[in-house]
Amino acid sequence: MIPLPRLQELVLDGIQQLSFPNEPAALYDPLRYILSLGGKRMRPVLTLMGCDVFAGDVKAALPAALGVEVFHNFTLMHDDIMDNAPLRRSKPTVHTKWNSNIAILSGDAMFVESCRLVMQSPDAAVRQVMEVFTKTALEVCEGQQYDMDFESMSEVSIDQYIDMIRLKTAVLLGGSLKMGAIIAGANESDANHLYDFGVNLGVAFQLQDDILDVFGDADKFGKQVGGDILSNKKTFLLLTALNTAQGTTKDSLLQWINTTDQPQQKVIAVTEIYNSLNVREVAEGKMNELYDIALSHLDSIPVDDANKQPLKDLAASLMVRQN
Amino acid sequence: MIPLPRLQELVLDGIQQLSFPNEPAALYDPLRYILSLGGKRMRPVLTLMGCDVFAGDVKAALPAALGVEVFHNFTLMHDDIMDNAPLRRSKPTVHTKWNSNIAILSGDAMFVESCRLVMQSPDAAVRQVMEVFTKTALEVCEGQQYDMDFESMSEVSIDQYIDMIRLKTAVLLGGSLKMGAIIAGANESDANHLYDFGVNLGVAFQLQDDILDVFGDADKFGKQVGGDILSNKKTFLLLTALNTAQGTTKDSLLQWINTTDQPQQKVIAVTEIYNSLNVREVAEGKMNELYDIALSHLDSIPVDDANKQPLKDLAASLMVRQN
Repeated sequence: MIPLPRLQELVLDGIQQLSFPNEPAALYDPLRYILSLGGKRMRPVLTLMGCDVFAGDVKAALPAALGVEVFHNFTLMHDDIMDNAPLRRSKPTVHTKWNSNIAILSGDAMFVESCRLVMQSPDAAVRQVMEVFTKTALEVCEGQQYDMDFESMSEVSIDQYIDMIRLKTAVLLGGSLKMGAIIAGANESDANHLYDFGVNLGVAFQLQDDILDVFGDADKFGKQVGGDILSNKKTFLLLTALNTAQGTTKDSLLQWINTTDQPQQKVIAVTEIYNSLNVREVAEGKMNELYDIALSHLDSIPVDDANKQPLKDLAASLMVRQN
Repeated sequence: MIPLPRLQELVLDGIQQLSFPNEPAALYDPLRYILSLGGKRMRPVLTLMGCDVFAGDVKAALPAALGVEVFHNFTLMHDDIMDNAPLRRSKPTVHTKWNSNIAILSGDAMFVESCRLVMQSPDAAVRQVMEVFTKTALEVCEGQQYDMDFESMSEVSIDQYIDMIRLKTAVLLGGSLKMGAIIAGANESDANHLYDFGVNLGVAFQLQDDILDVFGDADKFGKQVGGDILSNKKTFLLLTALNTAQGTTKDSLLQWINTTDQPQQKVIAVTEIYNSLNVREVAEGKMNELYDIALSHLDSIPVDDANKQPLKDLAASLMVRQN
């Protein structure tokens, strides 16, 4: 197996070597800018890992891996417009630094560039890889749309929420892995097990994010605890609480949702309601269930355990238990 | 050769049979809506014609043709946001009927769908067809960016303008034809001649549009004559006039450009200046030059004249001389 740091190096070098035209500057500068903001580059590394599990040639998977990273950054550029986000990785977002029209068009060009990269996959794999890539890309759009829909919906079920985060974030992890597996020549069943590993891990990771936003250590977590509570974001926690709360607890929860002028008290009060309803335990239960499902898919792949160890390690490192 | 009406029927049937998911409705309804607004469907017909010139199986080119049409409508959806356009084919634009976020995301999904259609091209052609498709898609983005750039530039050269309209509108006509040619198995040189036919014809057609906007018959032309003059649009005519006007004529032209409160007089006065500078003749000269270049590329393709006749007829029908 190729050590994780070597795969990360391959991805970083590959990103460094991507070259785009200089003109028109307003089209290609934002693309270079958002790619320069960094990030964990997890998705392209997953593509290389997905290839390496099956002892494939990771260099052959590199263009597809880079395509996935460019695609991911395209979605960030457009999502930032839609979410009206001023900052991305502590730097101005593209639509803030330039303007919305430039962020729309530059994002479009970025998506085209991502297709061109994925199309550089080997002949034997290219059609299947593009099928996974474009199906995943559509699903990511669907997830973002559901996320926007949910903001104005009065009732969202837990299943709807899980499906939304599956589409919005998890399928791209699964798709990244599967693209690598296909390039390595894995059969459909094995490639799908790897996909399901990625998707279930991705949903578990997102649930962890929901939990940490309320119960995490602010220093370790790196962002303000309680942000989701303040913005009334329909997370797994809030939806579970709304589902299970009754009587005065429910009245109190609804009242705090409508409160905007006492932020500190709101975070404390809603957290207390969550505690009284065992919401954290429910969320952790679901998270662990999905994590176990993810690992069982990895177990089902008939290759040496040594080949799967890097993915097991990665999965474990993503699930940082805080207690 | 397959008669043009039969090719148009194939395209219309194909568009009719395109099916997209129902949910999320806000993602896919706008896509269905913009495709339902109609239009000449010229680009997909060109793909089928490009295939038919080389006696290829036009049914094999149909998915790529539909992909081109879906792509074209995606660019319209995003361009309408950027241009703040309220209407498209006399109906509300997507961002007006829904909102900008929905038009951004639905457009993104539309581009993915267009890729999926083009990817349905036959194995032997798919890589080359996707290369033409994605290269063209990038160039269309570049053209739109230059068009936006030009609005705030004080000086735009004729060459820059021609290059902008080539990228923004003409390469997609050339690319549509070339994709069909590749699917028919045409060699690189022949496919490129067909591409150059389309690109030169496309630029000539755009110049005709500039000319008709000032000198056209309002009834035949179907839109208000003088619209470009009123909006100070940097067309071939205005740029040529700015390049050639001197002394008091130039002063007068610049003065009218800055006038907004006398629309009728402005159209009359600027048209008179154009006449005094023979701007129409210069534009028609350039248009005819490009039209002849287009036809010479068609002539260079070593197939029976009968195979090329439909494209010659189409070219002639696009160039409707008004005098």
